Amino acid sequence: MNNSLLLDRSFLALSHPIRRTIVERLARGPASVGEATGGLGISKPAVTKHLKVLERAGVVRRHVEGRTHRLELEARALARAEEWLEYHRRLWEAKFDAVEEHLARQRPKGDRT
Amino acid sequence: MNNSLLLDRSFLALSHPIRRTIVERLARGPASVGEATGGLGISKPAVTKHLKVLERAGVVRRHVEGRTHRLELEARALARAEEWLEYHRRLWEAKFDAVEEHLARQRPKGDRT
Repeated sequence: MNNSLLLDRSFLALSHPIRRTIVERLARGPASVGEATGGLGISKPAVTKHLKVLERAGVVRRHVEGRTHRLELEARALARAEEWLEYHRRLWEAKFDAVEEHLARQRPKGDRT
Repeated sequence: MNNSLLLDRSFLALSHPIRRTIVERLARGPASVGEATGGLGISKPAVTKHLKVLERAGVVRRHVEGRTHRLELEARALARAEEWLEYHRRLWEAKFDAVEEHLARQRPKGDRT
């Protein structure tokens, strides 16, 4: 899977509050499907659908241990999305700072606040 | 708009490669609609739709200057999504490190590699 498709899927996976809640729980440690998705007030098919979106994005991994399915966060998927955001935010801020600096230099001396 | 809804919209806005390309261009500085969306190989209505998604999310702002619409990135929207990702990735990594440390302590002396 190429990087762009991974980003598509990661950002899409994180665009729903139920899926972010599951990620927030799993950030505290691996959990069973029941632990990760209990009390969300949604149907079992909805849980299955949301987990599938998270797994397809590689944000969550499922480990089958006998009859228990344990869910685990995949930090690399979060890091990938985070790095994309950070890179472009910094690029923009650097651009912004350069414009500010240019304007500051154009101001007459004594007028610098 | 509450923070959860803002995150929904920001992550959704970034889940499409065309919209990420627009953000990548705007990270290099404000641009006209033509500059930001030229050569993407999509129709005008599609451009309009994608820009609407970015603006609704607060990721892109539009400034009307006479007949020119200038687009600008809103760094705060990127920062908000970035902070959510960073917080949960770190939480998970700290958890992971604690488990590793615990296992290392359980290993007999001389067996530490």
